[in-house]
Amino acid sequence: MKKKAAVLGATGMVGQRFIKLLEEHPWFELTALAASERSAGKKYSKVAKWVLDQEMSPEVGDMAVLSMDPKAVGDIELAFSALPSDIAKGVEESFARAGITVLSNARAHRMELDVPLLNPEANADHISLIEEQRRNRGWDGVIVTNPNCTVAVLSLSLKPIYSSFGLKRVLVSTMQALSGAGYPGVAAIEILDNVIPYIESEEEKVQDEAQKILGQPMKPATFKISASCHRVQVIDGHTEAVFVETEQKAEPEEVIDVMEKFRAEPQKLKLPSAPEAPIVVKRNDYRPQPRLDRMEGRGMAVVVGRVRRDLALDGIKYVVLGHNTLRGAAGCSILNAELLTAKGYL
Amino acid sequence: MKKKAAVLGATGMVGQRFIKLLEEHPWFELTALAASERSAGKKYSKVAKWVLDQEMSPEVGDMAVLSMDPKAVGDIELAFSALPSDIAKGVEESFARAGITVLSNARAHRMELDVPLLNPEANADHISLIEEQRRNRGWDGVIVTNPNCTVAVLSLSLKPIYSSFGLKRVLVSTMQALSGAGYPGVAAIEILDNVIPYIESEEEKVQDEAQKILGQPMKPATFKISASCHRVQVIDGHTEAVFVETEQKAEPEEVIDVMEKFRAEPQKLKLPSAPEAPIVVKRNDYRPQPRLDRMEGRGMAVVVGRVRRDLALDGIKYVVLGHNTLRGAAGCSILNAELLTAKGYL
Amino acid sequence: MKKKAAVLGATGMVGQRFIKLLEEHPWFELTALAASERSAGKKYSKVAKWVLDQEMSPEVGDMAVLSMDPKAVGDIELAFSALPSDIAKGVEESFARAGITVLSNARAHRMELDVPLLNPEANADHISLIEEQRRNRGWDGVIVTNPNCTVAVLSLSLKPIYSSFGLKRVLVSTMQALSGAGYPGVAAIEILDNVIPYIESEEEKVQDEAQKILGQPMKPATFKISASCHRVQVIDGHTEAVFVETEQKAEPEEVIDVMEKFRAEPQKLKLPSAPEAPIVVKRNDYRPQPRLDRMEGRGMAVVVGRVRRDLALDGIKYVVLGHNTLRGAAGCSILNAELLTAKGYL
Amino acid sequence: MKKKAAVLGATGMVGQRFIKLLEEHPWFELTALAASERSAGKKYSKVAKWVLDQEMSPEVGDMAVLSMDPKAVGDIELAFSALPSDIAKGVEESFARAGITVLSNARAHRMELDVPLLNPEANADHISLIEEQRRNRGWDGVIVTNPNCTVAVLSLSLKPIYSSFGLKRVLVSTMQALSGAGYPGVAAIEILDNVIPYIESEEEKVQDEAQKILGQPMKPATFKISASCHRVQVIDGHTEAVFVETEQKAEPEEVIDVMEKFRAEPQKLKLPSAPEAPIVVKRNDYRPQPRLDRMEGRGMAVVVGRVRRDLALDGIKYVVLGHNTLRGAAGCSILNAELLTAKGYL
Repeated sequence: MKKKAAVLGATGMVGQRFIKLLEEHPWFELTALAASERSAGKKYSKVAKWVLDQEMSPEVGDMAVLSMDPKAVGDIELAFSALPSDIAKGVEESFARAGITVLSNARAHRMELDVPLLNPEANADHISLIEEQRRNRGWDGVIVTNPNCTVAVLSLSLKPIYSSFGLKRVLVSTMQALSGAGYPGVAAIEILDNVIPYIESEEEKVQDEAQKILGQPMKPATFKISASCHRVQVIDGHTEAVFVETEQKAEPEEVIDVMEKFRAEPQKLKLPSAPEAPIVVKRNDYRPQPRLDRMEGRGMAVVVGRVRRDLALDGIKYVVLGHNTLRGAAGCSILNAELLTAKGYL
Repeated sequence: MKKKAAVLGATGMVGQRFIKLLEEHPWFELTALAASERSAGKKYSKVAKWVLDQEMSPEVGDMAVLSMDPKAVGDIELAFSALPSDIAKGVEESFARAGITVLSNARAHRMELDVPLLNPEANADHISLIEEQRRNRGWDGVIVTNPNCTVAVLSLSLKPIYSSFGLKRVLVSTMQALSGAGYPGVAAIEILDNVIPYIESEEEKVQDEAQKILGQPMKPATFKISASCHRVQVIDGHTEAVFVETEQKAEPEEVIDVMEKFRAEPQKLKLPSAPEAPIVVKRNDYRPQPRLDRMEGRGMAVVVGRVRRDLALDGIKYVVLGHNTLRGAAGCSILNAELLTAKGYL
Repeated sequence: MKKKAAVLGATGMVGQRFIKLLEEHPWFELTALAASERSAGKKYSKVAKWVLDQEMSPEVGDMAVLSMDPKAVGDIELAFSALPSDIAKGVEESFARAGITVLSNARAHRMELDVPLLNPEANADHISLIEEQRRNRGWDGVIVTNPNCTVAVLSLSLKPIYSSFGLKRVLVSTMQALSGAGYPGVAAIEILDNVIPYIESEEEKVQDEAQKILGQPMKPATFKISASCHRVQVIDGHTEAVFVETEQKAEPEEVIDVMEKFRAEPQKLKLPSAPEAPIVVKRNDYRPQPRLDRMEGRGMAVVVGRVRRDLALDGIKYVVLGHNTLRGAAGCSILNAELLTAKGYL
Repeated sequence: MKKKAAVLGATGMVGQRFIKLLEEHPWFELTALAASERSAGKKYSKVAKWVLDQEMSPEVGDMAVLSMDPKAVGDIELAFSALPSDIAKGVEESFARAGITVLSNARAHRMELDVPLLNPEANADHISLIEEQRRNRGWDGVIVTNPNCTVAVLSLSLKPIYSSFGLKRVLVSTMQALSGAGYPGVAAIEILDNVIPYIESEEEKVQDEAQKILGQPMKPATFKISASCHRVQVIDGHTEAVFVETEQKAEPEEVIDVMEKFRAEPQKLKLPSAPEAPIVVKRNDYRPQPRLDRMEGRGMAVVVGRVRRDLALDGIKYVVLGHNTLRGAAGCSILNAELLTAKGYL
């Protein structure tokens, strides 16, 4: 028997990714689509501006869009939230209060101490915050968040380095895809023949969330981190140039080795969305490239290349790429729900 | 009376930039175009695949292409070299030996100790190497080089920081324009919806040349530097994310201040190609952008934005943009020739 | 003494083009900027999202935005309208009623019989409709419109063919620039690696307006015309593939000849914005190209290439390119105002 | 038992498509890769610059590249040719003479009267030319060609119109993908923010091949046809605006109807590569779009949209899109081989 799931914020780009991932999911069944009052009561195909390359299925197109109210959405166990941050706060709480497990891609609750910010290959143990959260808040349900897209990719690539060699400093410069800005997002006339050197609040999220994810529950990691975030003309796939100073000296081949051997809880539990290898390392200098590598592991693996010595930090530098709306958003939320299921939280 | 000048390697993209810059130059007169044997003896318009947005002038199109031999090129004082590095070595030496001042954009001689690597706002004093070179080599002419495009932009932005606060470490991640790869350069199907995370030899050039430029003649600077170089879908204009650890602590506003006030020898001498302000600082977070800012100072200024604290190095980070074939190539060579003229070397 | 002019709808992309063109105009002086109530009362720099590559001048940025009411705008002779069509109707009439000459880029009044739809090289004689309009409407002012961007380019290229050989049928397939959709217009994720095969109402405008422009005042031309309009990933410059069946048989060289020799009223009157040659013909098969040719004649000329026989219509086919926001919008309106001035209507 | 097949010209982009399509083919087995002497004798992975998004399989990478000589290639029944036209002529003939069935994507033999130019949904009956060719040439093998990419898409969309209503005139204006130019093909700096209005020999191919395909064996169709061909910034998928004058008047709904109902020999025979519906009609005005629709029917269907009345020809106009290296090249060749197999020619 599949668990019934709703998508909150179903009309946006991440909502669409949720829908596609749930359509054929072995454990979950999409039974409700909820969106803003403007859309509620109408057929999904009438209100959603579909932007994915894969088609909207007719069954989904025929579903009625519901209000974002636990009562309206009815009998579900799970709610996947693709809501804008300002709306997410209240709506997600109301669903958790109603006994529903909320898997949220929104920023609203990520940095709260008793809310797991789960990137499951990096910190499956943070799942223990669920008890803490229930104790604190007295809810039957719970809110579990996944990281910002840039951090999801970065923190996964850092995890085996952190475990094996420790981290003193991380500097990251990003070349981010357009889909990260949602729809309509960036205007075509702004980005053609251009780079946009700023993404609002992104650098702060990268810095704060990386430390939370790689730390212990309720105790962020203390390595130093700095990000510079930029938008480039790519549809999907964030490319990140990473410079790392480790606690213990590490040679490039050692870093490649720990990355390639890295397997974590989702792999051990054989979760349906878990990539076989969460980090794929390329030895061809011209890789990773977003168009060629973003679908590695059905968009759930990150691809690393150009692992080499760094002369400024006496450390390591590399390039990592990941799919920003799969590993970096909807896919990560689904993987979180799978982890909760396998661990008996659902 | 204008000084007569040749362009060596006149058919390529940088050669075309030289031609355009010389066409209306107040001090220099384009009298000869030289290229490989394949092209020699033919009309320029027949052998050059013109790629600039500005048109080729009919006068230039009618010029006969000459062999790359000082005798063939005839009576000139200056030769601007846009040759590929492997050919540049011998050809440039033969012109210098023949008494000609060679202004070279090629990599071949840049790192030789007695060859000035001149980015004139950053190190006009390196011009003194000319005497050293003549002593060493016994030539009547001389070879003066300009930096790699990425370094030209970077080192100019670093100069006032280095002078005012000292430099301990520099990390730079680039988003480089397609014109940097010449013509045909990058294939359209490789870069559309994509980023290419590698540019051959580029990171080494950035590291070595930055230390030479910001050092003293024959004595490179000793700050640590690391680069990660990437190609993005932009026609002209390299965007660089720079992270800096200074010797003395510097606040963002102090850095902005020294950048905005920065003027150097080319400004003092009012050289024709010198931009009024070599560094323009934008306070709008969404700038600099290559399409909007690359022509600042007729392509000879660099534009800096997003100057802010860096939490990993306890330093400063910023984004700098410059035109890679003007400030970063042909324009810099011309400015070097102007400096030599004003200083009596020509 | 320059004539005082306002821009209505000053914050959008065409409004910005008007501002730039008026800033240094020898005959007109920009004295008022009007926009929607949301913007009125604020500084222009605070409400306009500036999207042109050329910078907004500080003087313009400091201007207060006014309401779109003739009284608020004060003492002006001319109003250039870049309003959306639904708003344009009422606002433009109120200005005309108040004695002001309205030069409109909006669609609202274009097809009204007594309103000149002026593309001055093609139909300067339609200016006579001004008297007709005043008679009909009893206004002191007048409304003069310029064509849709696609038609402006097309009809200019057709004019000498029509005059010399007559026209039976015209088929046109367009590859239109993104700026034609205004700002934000097309989302980047929609057009990257893509073509959009539909532009709402565009084909009807092309068909109707071409016949009106090339006809006599109040009597549209009767050639048959069909358009297929598509959006491609180009910032500025509409490229149009044109297939023509003429009344009298015409060879490609004859068509080239009449195009190259074509000069019209704006050239005879030496209007400030008139290009020297309104149609520039290229004989290189790879031209015209939007990036290389859109600024021909400061964006006011159209560039024709590939004039050749057409086997299906036993006629002629060619490709024409023109700048859609200069010749195809703001520039054409300004040229219309210049024509009215030279002809004593202002 | 699968039939053994070679790919001639295996290193180029179409060669790579052949390899991918053969890797999992139910009827054919890839046993040999042949390329120019420069590559012969080396491992495929060492000489092929792989450009597809799907990875090269390790088995293929390890294959030795052979000379383009029937003896070197050994025991095969089929040779798929992705050779450049000038080389194709002789090489393909030598394979046919050696008893091998050559399925050629090259232009060399397409217009020869006794060579089938097969687009199997459009003209499966042309297969009868095989006997004619063998009679004429005395070969044991045979050469069967598939059309130019643009024509493959166009002629498939025209077929049901031609059958039901007849064709008097066809005008087509194309927006062609970059992959049609092979690798490296178009330089990135040439096409960014641009359209290139010319593709050498393309218009002639469209015109000649369409008449041959839609005609009877040895007797081309006589409708008039004219093409204007342009390159746009799209990776895969040619978009074509088609204007049609039919013999018998046809309403748009009738055209849609015959297109949607259209099924042909490959569908009846259930050939492995045949799309279920060869023509998919979209009623959303914003479709077809290359990025969304090019993989319809695994790249073997064409997608039609915007079927509407044409006012200039008193006919019909529509937009058709197809994948230029699948339906328009390698996929069509494979489908041809399947047709020959099913019909007993192999």
